[in-house]
Amino acid sequence: MDNKFEVPEPGNDLLEKADQVRIASIKVSQTENDNRIKALNFMADFLEKNTNEIIEANNEDYIRAEKKGISKALLSRLKLPKEKLNLGIEGVRKVGDLIDPVNHVQIRRELSEGLILERKTVPIGVLGVIFESRPDAVMQISSLAIRSGNGVILKGGSEANFTNSAIVEALQQGLHESGLDRNAICLLTNRKDSMSMLKLDKYINLIIPRGSNELVQFIQANTRIPVLGHADGICHLFIDYEANLEMALSVALDSKIQYPAACNAIETLLVHKDIASVFLEKAIPLFNSNDVKLIGDKRSVELGVKYEASQEDWQTEYLDLILSIKIVDDIEEAITHIQKFSSRHTDGIITENFNSANKFMNSVDSSGVFHNCSTRFADGFRYGFGAEVGISTQTLPPRGPVGLEGLVTYKYFLKGNGNIVEDFSTGNAFYTHKDL
Amino acid sequence: MDNKFEVPEPGNDLLEKADQVRIASIKVSQTENDNRIKALNFMADFLEKNTNEIIEANNEDYIRAEKKGISKALLSRLKLPKEKLNLGIEGVRKVGDLIDPVNHVQIRRELSEGLILERKTVPIGVLGVIFESRPDAVMQISSLAIRSGNGVILKGGSEANFTNSAIVEALQQGLHESGLDRNAICLLTNRKDSMSMLKLDKYINLIIPRGSNELVQFIQANTRIPVLGHADGICHLFIDYEANLEMALSVALDSKIQYPAACNAIETLLVHKDIASVFLEKAIPLFNSNDVKLIGDKRSVELGVKYEASQEDWQTEYLDLILSIKIVDDIEEAITHIQKFSSRHTDGIITENFNSANKFMNSVDSSGVFHNCSTRFADGFRYGFGAEVGISTQTLPPRGPVGLEGLVTYKYFLKGNGNIVEDFSTGNAFYTHKDL
Repeated sequence: MDNKFEVPEPGNDLLEKADQVRIASIKVSQTENDNRIKALNFMADFLEKNTNEIIEANNEDYIRAEKKGISKALLSRLKLPKEKLNLGIEGVRKVGDLIDPVNHVQIRRELSEGLILERKTVPIGVLGVIFESRPDAVMQISSLAIRSGNGVILKGGSEANFTNSAIVEALQQGLHESGLDRNAICLLTNRKDSMSMLKLDKYINLIIPRGSNELVQFIQANTRIPVLGHADGICHLFIDYEANLEMALSVALDSKIQYPAACNAIETLLVHKDIASVFLEKAIPLFNSNDVKLIGDKRSVELGVKYEASQEDWQTEYLDLILSIKIVDDIEEAITHIQKFSSRHTDGIITENFNSANKFMNSVDSSGVFHNCSTRFADGFRYGFGAEVGISTQTLPPRGPVGLEGLVTYKYFLKGNGNIVEDFSTGNAFYTHKDL
Repeated sequence: MDNKFEVPEPGNDLLEKADQVRIASIKVSQTENDNRIKALNFMADFLEKNTNEIIEANNEDYIRAEKKGISKALLSRLKLPKEKLNLGIEGVRKVGDLIDPVNHVQIRRELSEGLILERKTVPIGVLGVIFESRPDAVMQISSLAIRSGNGVILKGGSEANFTNSAIVEALQQGLHESGLDRNAICLLTNRKDSMSMLKLDKYINLIIPRGSNELVQFIQANTRIPVLGHADGICHLFIDYEANLEMALSVALDSKIQYPAACNAIETLLVHKDIASVFLEKAIPLFNSNDVKLIGDKRSVELGVKYEASQEDWQTEYLDLILSIKIVDDIEEAITHIQKFSSRHTDGIITENFNSANKFMNSVDSSGVFHNCSTRFADGFRYGFGAEVGISTQTLPPRGPVGLEGLVTYKYFLKGNGNIVEDFSTGNAFYTHKDL
């Protein structure tokens, strides 16, 4: 996607739709926990009821996509067989079981007699979600949005338009049946609208892109709306000289091959020079037997790594069975390399020395810093969040794997009995600042 | 400031400086609470020691500014007499007394046997602060930055360059004396650099603009770095028909005149039609006697308001003794007006009816929603935060008045003993997700 592409101004149709979602989202934001759980159950019920329509719509999409000669990988992501749909429906119900993220009291404080401040979590408002293929994402994201009291504007890949429309129709029926405004979930089906979405900063409070790095980068460069996500996942593992060798081999392998296309898989292995030869002696055949192509710096090539790395390799997310290896003189060099090339997603160290581990974890400024375990654990489900909205590599919260908690913000409620500031400057009133 | 102004690419000098701050900030981020308190005390000590140099530098700035014919308002903000400097120094020590925002454990969870997840607050990294005149801001912002373990790049108004340089020199001496890297505080003194700062997204993690609405808007439109601040403060007060009349008058007056140039002063008063005539009968003379110019919609003009409002008035932040008044049919109309025109800073309601108050507070999506008290309470000091970095009208946190807490983010620390994800998919390990 070309970064110079001009984002079109939203048309009146889109503005009107967005305003409907905004109004519906305000209503949803005021519902009780029970209402929202009920809505999720109705949404799941209607997905079940409409199963045939959804499967038919998906077949239609599939046939058209095949005719267009779309790649096999895309076709397989587009396909929504009944079992996958059922898993999605089960997922919707499960989101209902998660703890309500709304209405948590974070501060409750008497500012002065009779003047009470509360800070409570509230929904963000309207989420804008842009995703590629994978129609099951519609169910997941919509249920997370409603669970957290938000409205959502969805834009999927055009090749899944029939499927996405059928799913959203069922979800809207469920919303309506439960007494909520069906407009709280809205699907955009033409490409122009999806781009114009990026200019709806008066209506959309958070953009969540789910797709390729290019998609995310394009969105980040073309909107003033906050974006939850990550463009790159360049993760590192540093094998310290005081590492347990067996552990280092096992964790390095898992971090690379357990699911190489994941953002939390490592792209670069940094190896302390004092352990490099013993480590590589075992690591090279291990990676070779697992079909991992190794690319290394000069020193590691001298120790048997087959291909020499270019500067480009240190900043490449392979998303594949390829691993770059660099030998470093000490932990400082490892940290400096990571600070330079890491996408601040997840970086780990293997060492038996706790001081070194602490130094590493404090110096590396990534959302996840791991000691003696696989980088593949960087994931909302594994962290125990129940569901994951995405992984953010922003510095400010929400950061790292984001669960429902990332879909709420907070608001200050101040209740008084006629209190005025002037009384405090004249000495007729004073602050108590007492937490209640 | 012209929004079309092209932000210049940062030069090598600036890149190098920014990198020094980044490296220093990593060191500061690893210091203990005691170190940072000690640093603040040394910073205050050196400000005291260097008082003469600072006052002289300020005189130099003042003389030059007078010659240039700078406005009286700007001149008075530029002036740093000894008493004001002493207050600033006292402020630096007070920031030392605030609770350490770093290292708070937010999550501590066993993911599986021997695999422990912690989420802890950590400094953001490097703050970029752009402010106009007011050299005391340098002391305040620098102390907040160091207190929270961050580095800071400052750019003040060029008319205060001598003063700011003398203050920063003292602060850096204090840092150095306490054992910290003096580069953690950096002052930019030319205008080109201050603009190029907006492109330092690899070095600066948060921009804090302190100045006019135009400055903030320009910055928001020209950087990919998150911006903490607000461009507008269009605050509303709604007088419900079930309001206590005396309270309504007193709170409305305080919200407007207690400090009209503040962002939390109201610009628009919405009055329920059923109370409009009795309220305005008393409010008009009250505001008149306090030199407030009233501008109203047709109906309020019929009830005695002197000037008729144009559409423009509802979206104008007067920052002056001017108030626009609109009569509404019901609470829904008030809420709709606020949703349309509010800058989502602070909006209040005066009513004795708790249902109406709740409806208002839940529907109005501003960072502060107030019931029966003055909007002027929207302030970090009044909220009990000890010090205020700024007020954010963003939806996502940090939102509203932001204290030290807004200068930290969090990071996930995962510690294991060789745990790999593959073991969980083969059933050799399982998740416990037990909060500790």
